[in-house]
Amino acid sequence: MSDDRDLIEHKTGSLELLTGRFLHVFRDTVRLPDGSETTRDYIVHPGAVMMIAVLDDGRLVLERQFRYPMDRVMIEFPAGKIDAGEEPLACARRELLEETGYSAREWARAGVLHPVISYSTEFIEIWFARGLTLNERKLDHGEFIEVMLATPEELLAWCGDGRVTDAKTIVGSFWLQNLRSGTWKLDWKP
Amino acid sequence: MSDDRDLIEHKTGSLELLTGRFLHVFRDTVRLPDGSETTRDYIVHPGAVMMIAVLDDGRLVLERQFRYPMDRVMIEFPAGKIDAGEEPLACARRELLEETGYSAREWARAGVLHPVISYSTEFIEIWFARGLTLNERKLDHGEFIEVMLATPEELLAWCGDGRVTDAKTIVGSFWLQNLRSGTWKLDWKP
Repeated sequence: MSDDRDLIEHKTGSLELLTGRFLHVFRDTVRLPDGSETTRDYIVHPGAVMMIAVLDDGRLVLERQFRYPMDRVMIEFPAGKIDAGEEPLACARRELLEETGYSAREWARAGVLHPVISYSTEFIEIWFARGLTLNERKLDHGEFIEVMLATPEELLAWCGDGRVTDAKTIVGSFWLQNLRSGTWKLDWKP
Repeated sequence: MSDDRDLIEHKTGSLELLTGRFLHVFRDTVRLPDGSETTRDYIVHPGAVMMIAVLDDGRLVLERQFRYPMDRVMIEFPAGKIDAGEEPLACARRELLEETGYSAREWARAGVLHPVISYSTEFIEIWFARGLTLNERKLDHGEFIEVMLATPEELLAWCGDGRVTDAKTIVGSFWLQNLRSGTWKLDWKP
């Protein structure tokens, strides 16, 4: 591998292009490794958490939700954006309860994924939950989410046959496969 | 599962918020399943292709590239945006050659992933390539990419330990794992 200096870009300026209710877009001017200048347009995102909640019988808590940019209903692991100042685990607990009604006795952080490294700062922390109890869910106004259960084998098959195409959910299924085989491990905490 | 009518949103209007050189942002007004109205902000993206190129000795063609929104060098499978009117396979051949210098004798389409279903129309087709020949690469002006080789075992370990966090690359490693175990299959074409 080369020295990273041959690859790194340096910010020389920044312009706010859009402050939407939802999307926050910047255009930075940057100096490239060869000294020339260009611009980089990107979205600033607060980060998110994905929750892989496993019932005592091994089934997974999934959601069906209409995703407007996809123009269809998608099967996904529950996930939600981190509020300002919120700890990721607190976000995971809150979003799992709000969207699905489940609370969990134990949690484990598996890692982080970056869904769109070319044009968004978004990261998604991957958290596993077990010891689940079902309570009443509290969807936000304008949220329409259906909770569904599936086995890890079903989810794996759906990732292979194209029924599941959401990147974060496929990554979650990958984690499940390598945890179940013992290749990867989790550190569970109450 | 419920009838999807309980989940589907209908477009009632559309406003172009930003026509960037790179990011194209729309705000649509939509009618929710309960009849109320809201807005959806999202990026219109032409789609992309990821190339998982496997050398005869089993090693994978990867890239190291500085990703500005991440502020660091990332390890990734080669990928590129589809040009207007371009077939995905033609894009895969073009981008693999331009970025890495490799051309392939056989190709197989594994599937598609959606990296960011909440705010972009982007899809990434997943293509495998084998029977590789090394030629001269032709990076675009302002592109700084380092080619690296790794075994599937190394890539799998990096997905588990957090050295690889790019979602498309993790999904590619998941495909490799299930192809090598025989769980999933590919249909190779010259």
